[in-house]
Amino acid sequence: MTTPLQGNAVIGQSGGPTAVINQSAVGVVEGLKAASFAGKIFGARHAVDGMMSGDFLDLTDWPQDRLDRFAGTPSSGLGSSRRKPKEDDVKAMVEQFQKFDIRYFFYIGGNDSSDTCRIVSETATAMGYDMHAFHVPKTVDNDLVLNDHTPGWGSAAKFVAQAFMGDGLDNQALPGVKINVVMGRHAGFLTAASVLGRRPGTNDGPHLVYVPEADFDADQFCKDVEAKVKEIGRCVVAVSEGIHDKDGAPMAAKLAAMQGKEVEKDAHGNVQLSGSGALADFLAAAVKAHLGEGARVRADTFGYLQRSFAGLVSENDAKEARAAGAKAAELACSGISNGSIAIQRVEGDTYQVEYNRIELTDVAAKTQHLPTGWIVNGNDISDDFVKYAAPIVGELPVTERVDGW
Amino acid sequence: MTTPLQGNAVIGQSGGPTAVINQSAVGVVEGLKAASFAGKIFGARHAVDGMMSGDFLDLTDWPQDRLDRFAGTPSSGLGSSRRKPKEDDVKAMVEQFQKFDIRYFFYIGGNDSSDTCRIVSETATAMGYDMHAFHVPKTVDNDLVLNDHTPGWGSAAKFVAQAFMGDGLDNQALPGVKINVVMGRHAGFLTAASVLGRRPGTNDGPHLVYVPEADFDADQFCKDVEAKVKEIGRCVVAVSEGIHDKDGAPMAAKLAAMQGKEVEKDAHGNVQLSGSGALADFLAAAVKAHLGEGARVRADTFGYLQRSFAGLVSENDAKEARAAGAKAAELACSGISNGSIAIQRVEGDTYQVEYNRIELTDVAAKTQHLPTGWIVNGNDISDDFVKYAAPIVGELPVTERVDGW
Repeated sequence: MTTPLQGNAVIGQSGGPTAVINQSAVGVVEGLKAASFAGKIFGARHAVDGMMSGDFLDLTDWPQDRLDRFAGTPSSGLGSSRRKPKEDDVKAMVEQFQKFDIRYFFYIGGNDSSDTCRIVSETATAMGYDMHAFHVPKTVDNDLVLNDHTPGWGSAAKFVAQAFMGDGLDNQALPGVKINVVMGRHAGFLTAASVLGRRPGTNDGPHLVYVPEADFDADQFCKDVEAKVKEIGRCVVAVSEGIHDKDGAPMAAKLAAMQGKEVEKDAHGNVQLSGSGALADFLAAAVKAHLGEGARVRADTFGYLQRSFAGLVSENDAKEARAAGAKAAELACSGISNGSIAIQRVEGDTYQVEYNRIELTDVAAKTQHLPTGWIVNGNDISDDFVKYAAPIVGELPVTERVDGW
Repeated sequence: MTTPLQGNAVIGQSGGPTAVINQSAVGVVEGLKAASFAGKIFGARHAVDGMMSGDFLDLTDWPQDRLDRFAGTPSSGLGSSRRKPKEDDVKAMVEQFQKFDIRYFFYIGGNDSSDTCRIVSETATAMGYDMHAFHVPKTVDNDLVLNDHTPGWGSAAKFVAQAFMGDGLDNQALPGVKINVVMGRHAGFLTAASVLGRRPGTNDGPHLVYVPEADFDADQFCKDVEAKVKEIGRCVVAVSEGIHDKDGAPMAAKLAAMQGKEVEKDAHGNVQLSGSGALADFLAAAVKAHLGEGARVRADTFGYLQRSFAGLVSENDAKEARAAGAKAAELACSGISNGSIAIQRVEGDTYQVEYNRIELTDVAAKTQHLPTGWIVNGNDISDDFVKYAAPIVGELPVTERVDGW
């Protein structure tokens, strides 16, 4: 800990947007104000891109009602970026920080972003420029280590849960096989949320759930679906976009290769999974071929809706996203040089979390996975997950069924 | 008008589910009770299928709290069917009606369903079996003639509007081309709803909207996208699943043919459009080829989520769906033999509707289209549509942007 620096602050939002990432930005602003921060508070347009070019938005004098509206707006309102800054990029950023007298750097994002935060902190130090650098957690994948869960996931999980509630009832009304592909490259938390609306004592779907933590076998998948169809005449399936075979090859990429196509990769080397219905259609075709002509097989890919839907948030998720941003500001203003905020659950009968500082190097570029104990038979999710997720996601709609369903 | 018959009643839900079709079923139950209906009130499981086999659920003694929960549950809770009953099927239905002493037939559905209602009514008459047969309107497509709008559309439109609000902000954060395919085989009302969340004075999307009422030209489409990308660096597009070229061939079917595939058809001869991401992916590939390598082009297909999402309804839509069901019961109990309920808007400064009886033959198997005057340049939707739709869809979330966006 050092004496807090004089100067200005900048906030960036990186990676995929979420429904509550603006809550975190507003949390930082409010945290700075609560600590009587005297400098300017900037937002960087498009994250590292704006920091490299000096494209800063002045948020210092935003009135509370505008902050509140902004906090309630989905997606990254400052603009995002998927750029993984190289050495020269980071130097350009620090030069802009010097020019704008920015001594406080807040970066809201996932594990790639926490790594960027670490690089910025180290580069500034190497350049002899003193600054506070804090990472504020965000990811719909819920895959940051040392966190009980991550802001953005709760709201996306609520979307997925409510989508499966409705779609499961749709499938009950017009029976057949329905496959829904959910976001999640390496972690199955969001796909697991598909089970949260299942009501005990019913035939509610999803009946099968496939996550990246379990190897995916297309033949076994078809047999699983067939067995469920034989049992209840229909089957709703939740599939993570990141499912892969036992050799680790993503099914989405495998499909593209089979069709003689190349898959797009981002700056971090990640294969493009979202923004295409190819995986879902491939799985539907496989099931159709297996079940034979006449089978009603449909597939939807939830796509970007699940991360940025307007007007659908988990209240706890929104609250925690804001508090995590405020905590980062509080710690920076207390003189701490750098760190990442982790949301950690307090053991006890009622749901409670605390916001703790962890080292950037402990969270950067690591991935938290769905505990294997929560995966049942490689194709379902246990009640332990439901107990874990329920308070984070919040209340789900109440539904009613006729007798026999 | 005749003296109302003694006997029991049956309710069926046909075609695609909606978020409020159970409101209409409960509306019928409540309307019958309000008219002191003395018979049993049955629900037919899976519509005509249950009516042919006598699979009836007794709803007569459901307490109000169960009715309320059922009304608030999305999708067709009695089960649906896409069967277009043939002559023998309808005879089998009437035989079951005789067996169960059913004299009141309420059928909730779209234009195919109103035609089924007409056939049932005529067949019963021809068989010398007196009964009341009423059609209650429902369709997310909003394509029933003589109706100002149709229950189910308002809630689906709200989903589409909120999805585009969030996804447009997602595209603002991570710029590129985003194509979203929305339900709508012949009518563009639901796709048009994509514009309802656009805020004046911003670059909010969707920037291009393509509906089935305008011929679709893939080359012109690519040029439209390119022009928008040149102007603001990004482009959000709303596309109806039912878009077709100037010869009337659905683009989805054309694509399937180009890939050497056959398209699935339902009993009414309709090509399967939903439950596949093929059209969206085809359009994305076309744009990518046009803009060249490196262009960020993504596509999502909203799929079944937009019609059955749990916990997202337009309040007016829910209220009107229930009232339409109640009105059908009221008219039947007053002795009217048959008809369809039409929701018609009362001219005036404040939004108000009335529920009027129209002839089954006037609504059956006809399609209402988006007025061509509401389509701007073949790729956008006018404010006249917004004025029309706003009170039906209801309040949308409030959002806030940084300066310059």
